[in-house]
Amino acid sequence: MKFNIAVIPGDGVGPEVVEQAKKALDAVAEAYNHIFIYKEAQLGANAIDATGGPLPKETIEICKSADAILFGAVGDPKYDNDPSAKIRPEQGLLNLRRELDLYCNVRPVKAYDNLISNSPLKREVIKNSDFVIYRELTGGIYFGEKTLSEDKQTAHDVSSYTVKEISRVTHLAFQAAQKRKKKLTLVDKANVLETSRLWRKTVSEIAKEYKDVELEYLFVDNAAMKMILNPTHFDVILTENLFGDMISDVASSLCGSIGLLASSSIGAENGLFEPIHGSYSQAKGKDIANPLASILSAAMLLQYLGLHEEADAIERAVDKSLALGITTQDIKRKMQKSTTTSKVGDFVADYITNQD
Amino acid sequence: MKFNIAVIPGDGVGPEVVEQAKKALDAVAEAYNHIFIYKEAQLGANAIDATGGPLPKETIEICKSADAILFGAVGDPKYDNDPSAKIRPEQGLLNLRRELDLYCNVRPVKAYDNLISNSPLKREVIKNSDFVIYRELTGGIYFGEKTLSEDKQTAHDVSSYTVKEISRVTHLAFQAAQKRKKKLTLVDKANVLETSRLWRKTVSEIAKEYKDVELEYLFVDNAAMKMILNPTHFDVILTENLFGDMISDVASSLCGSIGLLASSSIGAENGLFEPIHGSYSQAKGKDIANPLASILSAAMLLQYLGLHEEADAIERAVDKSLALGITTQDIKRKMQKSTTTSKVGDFVADYITNQD
Ligand SMILES: [Mg+2]
Ligand SMILES: [Mg+2]
Repeated sequence: MKFNIAVIPGDGVGPEVVEQAKKALDAVAEAYNHIFIYKEAQLGANAIDATGGPLPKETIEICKSADAILFGAVGDPKYDNDPSAKIRPEQGLLNLRRELDLYCNVRPVKAYDNLISNSPLKREVIKNSDFVIYRELTGGIYFGEKTLSEDKQTAHDVSSYTVKEISRVTHLAFQAAQKRKKKLTLVDKANVLETSRLWRKTVSEIAKEYKDVELEYLFVDNAAMKMILNPTHFDVILTENLFGDMISDVASSLCGSIGLLASSSIGAENGLFEPIHGSYSQAKGKDIANPLASILSAAMLLQYLGLHEEADAIERAVDKSLALGITTQDIKRKMQKSTTTSKVGDFVADYITNQD
Repeated sequence: MKFNIAVIPGDGVGPEVVEQAKKALDAVAEAYNHIFIYKEAQLGANAIDATGGPLPKETIEICKSADAILFGAVGDPKYDNDPSAKIRPEQGLLNLRRELDLYCNVRPVKAYDNLISNSPLKREVIKNSDFVIYRELTGGIYFGEKTLSEDKQTAHDVSSYTVKEISRVTHLAFQAAQKRKKKLTLVDKANVLETSRLWRKTVSEIAKEYKDVELEYLFVDNAAMKMILNPTHFDVILTENLFGDMISDVASSLCGSIGLLASSSIGAENGLFEPIHGSYSQAKGKDIANPLASILSAAMLLQYLGLHEEADAIERAVDKSLALGITTQDIKRKMQKSTTTSKVGDFVADYITNQD
């Protein structure tokens, strides 16, 4: 089959990790007889330098006409260190998500056996953890009205949610649970928040359409606690924007492998796939950044396109690189040598091509 | 010196753990020549049974005229399992906090060497952790306006904070930092919330009065992550109500000793001291509940009254009971026998009396 893939390398180490992800996609194309047509686009600090703004119109067009978007990273210290900067690279990604109405953030979290020694948790606690967080990305308190009183003594933030906003992300989460261990945990604070009560009511209604999925409710503080004490409890977690922001980061601290975590942002028409690590500018151009999160984001992209077998091939190659210790410095184990970004990418691509 | 202490045993295991805390206070009174006058009051399910409501007027009066309040626990399964129940035991505690304007929740978190094996974290990660969370308790989104549109399609929650609300808890947190490691971390989400920006502005102004304290800002998701990866980073954490609710529970899951965690709720005129564990009704009357959290809440009460040496005496006795393994079942170590609630209380009181 033939697919159009928008490629946004972005800033910092973005270009070099995305290059490795493309190697993996090329290997998949060859092994499974697909054609991936890449269209490259600018976003972030590089776009500001080239065009004056962080999100050129051309980028939006390329993304809208693509089947999926492979994204690297955004951000540059020269903007972070300038508090007067009015234009910020990060705004490019936020604006792109809004332009494409990417309303659902998907964050898989998995404890890789070979990386457990890097986890802050004890082996017996984290072992076999494998869950995914579905976070609503366009509503809630981050996007509500914000006011500061004229005397500057009182500030307000408004959180709001509609049944429609809740429903669309809920369906995605239930569908994911059906393909996994058939368990969905709604994380809210329904004992105190009206928005949470609307979430609970809406989700429990929609649950009737997914009778094969077990639905559980947890308050967000309790969920965070349980995630630390018993992470294997979870399968699919569904939650609103603010709570998702927090528990995603709790989750990503557990496995000892931030350099392996990928995420996606999904809308009705499009999906964007990226590593959760940032632009990591200190490492830019040094061929030392871990490309596995970007490579795994390419696997998520294939899943999104319905190419499940192909996605599995990438994941197997990543497992193999970890098992053999063909990894970058950040996740190297004792007594092992580390290798470079591009060599990890070469290994993964070769393994996809040559595995039987 | 002479102090009036309101004692609210409450529900479930509340009465039996509070009894052990009183033994410790009595031992302190004898050893240091104080007089503690206890006035007992009802609150919670026991108050509903006796008076029809969870917070009798008499209880409010007793608390208002006391120098400090020693609290046990609230809650009874007979109300939890009845969704139609209009009167709830928990309402008694919420109403008491409001009546007394207890605006600051203080939650110390400490990794006891003898309990580290119960922690979900690796020993080298959690060892030596010792921090305290100051959480604003009367403002923010839990107490803001809540609305559901007439067509039931849209819900709203409003978060609001005033400079006054922020200031009073901020002063308490800075004063605590001055007596500790002189480091204060403000946890907020100032990149997206107007209330957080008002917190940051107000706290950075007040910081000028506490030049000996180092002030740091962290976004709440980053703070939660750091608490798991590097808990020894923290000394005093200051935060708003919702964020505090969450990170308090993240924090209390780290040390492997929920049965040891105490907390207080402080107002301008009064302070209430309690274990963080709930009423644990299954254990009621069985003499198996861990009394150490309640005993440590009595130590916090003494600190609040300015009796620092006396508070230290209780803490040393608790350390000793842990070192000798004179503990209840929940924190017993391998190869050790556990003992009863009242025997742990006896040991602590004896040790206070007889230590040199
Ligand atoms: Mg986050
Ligand atoms: Mg909580």
